[in-house]
Amino acid sequence: MESFNQLKERFEKVHNLSHLLSICGWDQASMMPSGGNDARSKAMAELGSIVHEMSSSSEVKKLMTNVNQDELKGHDKAIFLEIKRSYEMANALPPELVKKKSLAGAKCEHAWREQRPANDWKGFEKNFNEVLELSKQEAQIRAEHTGLSPYDALIDKFEPGMNQEKIDKIFSDVKQWLPNLLQEVVSKQSKEDVLEPTGPFAIEKQKELGHKIMEMLGFDFNGGRLDISTHPFCGGVPEDVRLTTRYYENDFTQSLMGIIHETGHACYEQNLPRDLIMYPAGSARTMGLHEGQSLLYEMQLGRSRSFLKSIAPLLKESFGDQEAFELDNLSKLYTRVKPGYIRVDADEVTYPLHVILRYEIEKELIENGAKASDIPDLWNEKMKNYLGLETSGNFKDGPLQDIHWTDGSFGYFPSYTLGAMYAAQQFSAIERVNPNLDSEIEAGNFKNIFSWLKENIWSKGSTAHIDEIIKEATGEVLNPQYLKDHLMKRYL
Amino acid sequence: MESFNQLKERFEKVHNLSHLLSICGWDQASMMPSGGNDARSKAMAELGSIVHEMSSSSEVKKLMTNVNQDELKGHDKAIFLEIKRSYEMANALPPELVKKKSLAGAKCEHAWREQRPANDWKGFEKNFNEVLELSKQEAQIRAEHTGLSPYDALIDKFEPGMNQEKIDKIFSDVKQWLPNLLQEVVSKQSKEDVLEPTGPFAIEKQKELGHKIMEMLGFDFNGGRLDISTHPFCGGVPEDVRLTTRYYENDFTQSLMGIIHETGHACYEQNLPRDLIMYPAGSARTMGLHEGQSLLYEMQLGRSRSFLKSIAPLLKESFGDQEAFELDNLSKLYTRVKPGYIRVDADEVTYPLHVILRYEIEKELIENGAKASDIPDLWNEKMKNYLGLETSGNFKDGPLQDIHWTDGSFGYFPSYTLGAMYAAQQFSAIERVNPNLDSEIEAGNFKNIFSWLKENIWSKGSTAHIDEIIKEATGEVLNPQYLKDHLMKRYL
Repeated sequence: MESFNQLKERFEKVHNLSHLLSICGWDQASMMPSGGNDARSKAMAELGSIVHEMSSSSEVKKLMTNVNQDELKGHDKAIFLEIKRSYEMANALPPELVKKKSLAGAKCEHAWREQRPANDWKGFEKNFNEVLELSKQEAQIRAEHTGLSPYDALIDKFEPGMNQEKIDKIFSDVKQWLPNLLQEVVSKQSKEDVLEPTGPFAIEKQKELGHKIMEMLGFDFNGGRLDISTHPFCGGVPEDVRLTTRYYENDFTQSLMGIIHETGHACYEQNLPRDLIMYPAGSARTMGLHEGQSLLYEMQLGRSRSFLKSIAPLLKESFGDQEAFELDNLSKLYTRVKPGYIRVDADEVTYPLHVILRYEIEKELIENGAKASDIPDLWNEKMKNYLGLETSGNFKDGPLQDIHWTDGSFGYFPSYTLGAMYAAQQFSAIERVNPNLDSEIEAGNFKNIFSWLKENIWSKGSTAHIDEIIKEATGEVLNPQYLKDHLMKRYL
Repeated sequence: MESFNQLKERFEKVHNLSHLLSICGWDQASMMPSGGNDARSKAMAELGSIVHEMSSSSEVKKLMTNVNQDELKGHDKAIFLEIKRSYEMANALPPELVKKKSLAGAKCEHAWREQRPANDWKGFEKNFNEVLELSKQEAQIRAEHTGLSPYDALIDKFEPGMNQEKIDKIFSDVKQWLPNLLQEVVSKQSKEDVLEPTGPFAIEKQKELGHKIMEMLGFDFNGGRLDISTHPFCGGVPEDVRLTTRYYENDFTQSLMGIIHETGHACYEQNLPRDLIMYPAGSARTMGLHEGQSLLYEMQLGRSRSFLKSIAPLLKESFGDQEAFELDNLSKLYTRVKPGYIRVDADEVTYPLHVILRYEIEKELIENGAKASDIPDLWNEKMKNYLGLETSGNFKDGPLQDIHWTDGSFGYFPSYTLGAMYAAQQFSAIERVNPNLDSEIEAGNFKNIFSWLKENIWSKGSTAHIDEIIKEATGEVLNPQYLKDHLMKRYL
């Protein structure tokens, strides 16, 4: 057990040092004046390389080899397996490729910041070709290490246990019913009138409201904060979660729902198993499951009629009584559906179609020989098919719209929609065991939701395979039917 | 030069890692929710020990031995000498003593938090005896290493180049004239009426005002921030200075002068030589000189009639027109003198007497065999002689009043008053070369002050001995006459 204990000690150190990186990363995004950036980036890179060395050096391998896995009991098994996974993940690539990819990604992203507003696809394509080439090399090497196919090996980085076979099955099902459902919803909603709340909405009031609702939703302010950043995120460490948002004086609705979304992420982090958080086994199971918590908070709970009923009095208290805050209107406001170009602005009905489009293009790029120059046509064709939108020539609202591809984060997109499915499946399981859930939610009482999530998802960390966790929690492995049922029930 | 370059590289790493410790330390004091404290303390201790190892391991000694000092040119000489000083400082004590002293200090401080309000000297004495004993051991060992006397060796930690012989000369001079001057001032002021500004003063307004005045005083908000903490401080790193204050709704005057004080520290940090800040040679020369910058800002400039004239319109703008903001009254308000028990609340006339009292008692404790149990009598006798106050039995406003002795920081107190003297001497030099300084200040134009300080003090870092820096800047080494002249001119 000596080697195992040394291995654990090493990862406890990694956990401690990573704490400082997380807090300084949060500070960089939310507090730091711009003049501090150079020094901060250097400082974080310095510690980053120490942490990387600590968790991926040959010493780790030596210790792992000396561990007799059969002797490991209880969570020790998971502690070992996740350390192994993390070690292999960190060591799969030759350092030279990591460096090249990081440089190419930084170059591509930097140029993209001006290419996007300039709608300059040709300029982007030049840099992106290199990023794509290096990502394909990465995929190939990871495939050899893991025995997975190249694109599966990329998906595995974010979503261990998931692969194209499973995703294809899920997404082809979604493609069967979602485009039609979307048309029906749009046609139904075209006959409805919705009132926009009238601003301005004082930032101070929005902040107070955000705090109140975070507290209602179980966020522990003794172990976390809410601040402001350009791109909202949930950062920090499980013991001190740093959540950020962005306020607009003329519209509180987006920011409020953003806070609810991030609070879902935050509650997962705050409730990870405290006796394991110093090891990889104590972290969130998959990115999809993480998204599954934020989307349960935002989509299943936050936009539900009963939740909106529970917070309507708070809105009136914060911003004065308005007709727009009447429940019927509020509910319409928060469930509007409209096909659009931009994924991050999409509602829950159109969102999966954006993701499927990305997923299908990534597959072509990584495994089927498509080139960067093929993207615009693929994009336009799929946009027309799935969302009925023509995008040819409009690169800035097309393949240039977000940052994900600039640094070669291929394999991530599916997690968003898997998350929506986990959320629907979890919520349905919660409803099953809590027959009065609706009226509890109306009364602002969410404790049965928290306790179910805590017991079945949050406290599990990465101690079991995602399929085991979901099956034990809901009675079956991921089943996209729950998302379909949810969308039909809410929107038709 | 290979060894010298390796030495420099090592300290560049130390600088980078220390950056993260500073920022996380600021966060701990100003942002962190209390539930995050355990994890944060562990994380900072982890990195702290890495930084300590890096800057004090035998590898540093080996590299230093291989450096041929005669080959070093320009600032390289200072870079080497200050690394050597920092290495010796860190290695002088056996690790066991460091640990023992740190534990004894933590225990004493922890208990002091309840012993002070309970006026429990006897309880304190028990813990303090151990702290004192270990501090005497520290002084003895440092004395052997440096060839200084034991108390001189402690002073040298904070104030390199200073010693009891010099301080005795300075302080005995002060004792000649300051108690009488104090009586005269008190008697003069007893005939004056002073109006207190009428609150409440909205925190938001105080904050805005603080920002404005920091900008006037040359603080670069592109490389720093102003926030709130229980105990105001100037933290962060030279590239990103984090200044804090504390606001009171019923009194803005304290907080405002606190901000001005900390801005003096901050401007020193922001203007340290950027090409050297990664080495000890690029840091502030002595604690006294650091205090000399904050006291130049607060005492020489901030409380001057001409400065108050320049900010009076801002006060009226922030808090409405009040009779208390008329220049004569404002000036009286900011130069009130009153002997009191508490050092940190003292005005600039009585402050040196508090410091002399501490210095004299420390000497007795460290070098002349006085015991902890002798402190109350020594304290009372000196309080009566210097400030005319009887303190027997009142321990909480006597030797229990502040945190400095609980962790054995002996040798620090003189720096406060040396700082006041540096401030007076610097300001007088600035006046000498700027005959229109008064009217410039009245007009809110401080650029001649900034440029003098930047050229003569701030940009020097630790590239020369303190006496050289001061002599080159002002024409002579530290001379307490400037403080005397300043106090007589302002208060009589």
